[in-house]
Amino acid sequence: MKQSDPPNLKDIEDAARRIAGVASRTPLVESPSLSRQAGRDIYLKLECFQPIKVFKIRGAYNKISQLDERSVVAASSGNHGIAVAYSCHLLGKKCTVVVPETAVEEKVNTILEYGAEVVRFGRLSGERELKGREIARVAGSAFVHPFNDPDVIAGQGTCGLEIAQQLDEFDSVLVPVGGGGLISGISTSLKGLKPEAKVFGVEPQGAPKLSAALRAKKVVTIAAPDSIADGLIPSALGELTYKACSRNVDGAFTVSDNEILRATRAMVREARIIAEPSGAAALAPLLSGPKVPGERVVVVVSGGNISANLLKDMLAS
Amino acid sequence: MKQSDPPNLKDIEDAARRIAGVASRTPLVESPSLSRQAGRDIYLKLECFQPIKVFKIRGAYNKISQLDERSVVAASSGNHGIAVAYSCHLLGKKCTVVVPETAVEEKVNTILEYGAEVVRFGRLSGERELKGREIARVAGSAFVHPFNDPDVIAGQGTCGLEIAQQLDEFDSVLVPVGGGGLISGISTSLKGLKPEAKVFGVEPQGAPKLSAALRAKKVVTIAAPDSIADGLIPSALGELTYKACSRNVDGAFTVSDNEILRATRAMVREARIIAEPSGAAALAPLLSGPKVPGERVVVVVSGGNISANLLKDMLAS
Repeated sequence: MKQSDPPNLKDIEDAARRIAGVASRTPLVESPSLSRQAGRDIYLKLECFQPIKVFKIRGAYNKISQLDERSVVAASSGNHGIAVAYSCHLLGKKCTVVVPETAVEEKVNTILEYGAEVVRFGRLSGERELKGREIARVAGSAFVHPFNDPDVIAGQGTCGLEIAQQLDEFDSVLVPVGGGGLISGISTSLKGLKPEAKVFGVEPQGAPKLSAALRAKKVVTIAAPDSIADGLIPSALGELTYKACSRNVDGAFTVSDNEILRATRAMVREARIIAEPSGAAALAPLLSGPKVPGERVVVVVSGGNISANLLKDMLAS
Repeated sequence: MKQSDPPNLKDIEDAARRIAGVASRTPLVESPSLSRQAGRDIYLKLECFQPIKVFKIRGAYNKISQLDERSVVAASSGNHGIAVAYSCHLLGKKCTVVVPETAVEEKVNTILEYGAEVVRFGRLSGERELKGREIARVAGSAFVHPFNDPDVIAGQGTCGLEIAQQLDEFDSVLVPVGGGGLISGISTSLKGLKPEAKVFGVEPQGAPKLSAALRAKKVVTIAAPDSIADGLIPSALGELTYKACSRNVDGAFTVSDNEILRATRAMVREARIIAEPSGAAALAPLLSGPKVPGERVVVVVSGGNISANLLKDMLAS
């Protein structure tokens, strides 16, 4: 695949064959209680049921399974690190993950469990990426970016293929937006297979990368991105994810942290689905009014790595 | 269908066509964390994702959609009443549910929400059933039994058809046992489609109806059935479910209430699945030693109607 262009539908179909048996074909279920609450038919695409509880296994495995290098480096504070460590574990490759000094112990332990080496470095994602790239250069390893990579985007796009296969008719799809890898892949799949469906991004008010980029018609860097949804706070889209989104995405909604927590709470209380805030965020615009178009809406629940403590809070009244 | 015999595979396949679009084809997912903990591959068949969060919609709708009567009566303290009320709501039939004076308000409210009339009567399931049959006789309504009915069993059996379609190879299937409708249906499906797979019941130590019946080779009534798993405490199998189980079930495991709670806790903490104790019970034998045969085991998670309070307890350390 040409590394300077986003993937096309054929690339995504190739990725689907590559990741079959490793990433799951996750369930798509209607939620009658959320449908009642939101006044339209809500379908949940449950990426929280992936083996590592998050969609990122799709992209990481599609990328790493094609590498010649015997060792891989990633920089991540969470789910991407887990996905790269897990993929390397399956493929017998050596793995190093650069995590922030402030990383959550729960996630670091999962990365260690899959046999990866963990390097703690700095607090900002920019310095972490530089450190990771340096380690990779010195060791002759491959550096795997969490989203600005055509093979990673193609892997995430397989989620969109499945939605198109699993549901005959739907009007809109809502996808949480971090660096934009997932929505780039899904929107590329759906514009190919279901061109009549609209694809919208959902992102925190404190990190509106996609909204800003669609408005400015270029990549925009957010000065101090911040949100309870820790998977959605990269400071900017990448050049590739911007390119894909500008072609295939129909718009973006921003939601407050309170709205994200309300969605996380509704997921567990109404639909009885355990999602992390980043994973539940795409439900938020449906709970706060009629701004999303369509009577049949698919919500991508991107991940379920919530801490037991926050989950307890979500159940308290 | 002959009302004095349990259904056969053909009856179950007919039921599948009847309930399509009403009951869901629920997900079957592997749980890597439970697999690690139990030392073998564990697959979860997630009936907690049915529209009413419990498998009973399969049997109730299969039965009621074939009735000529315009009104239906059920006696139930919980999930069966919800399933009958919901099916009548969909089919435009009048519905009456006899519930115990001690019924949980949460479940009564759900029954009322689907437009059914609720009659509170007595505390024992025997007197409730007599009352229900009397109301039905006087009004010319159909009385729908929760498990001892060939059409109800055939509906529940569709869960087994799906397991056989969703997973190529597995050694054992574990099914929670209340009156035996679910395991009768599933074991009939699987003995037809996957005769090499073993089907086991799991029931509370305080209500070992299936174990006792398999040993005595006839229906055995338990004097004072009791368990935290409130869906698993009928006092006996029915004649039909006994007949089906004696032909098709390979054995039964009994588990303590502590083991059931441990399984409920592991479901939410490890697999991040919200199940009620009756729904999680089939996992219990896998967490307490090697007694279940097989390397690839399917656990039927039969329902998810847990109260918010108990769920909070399950998350407390």
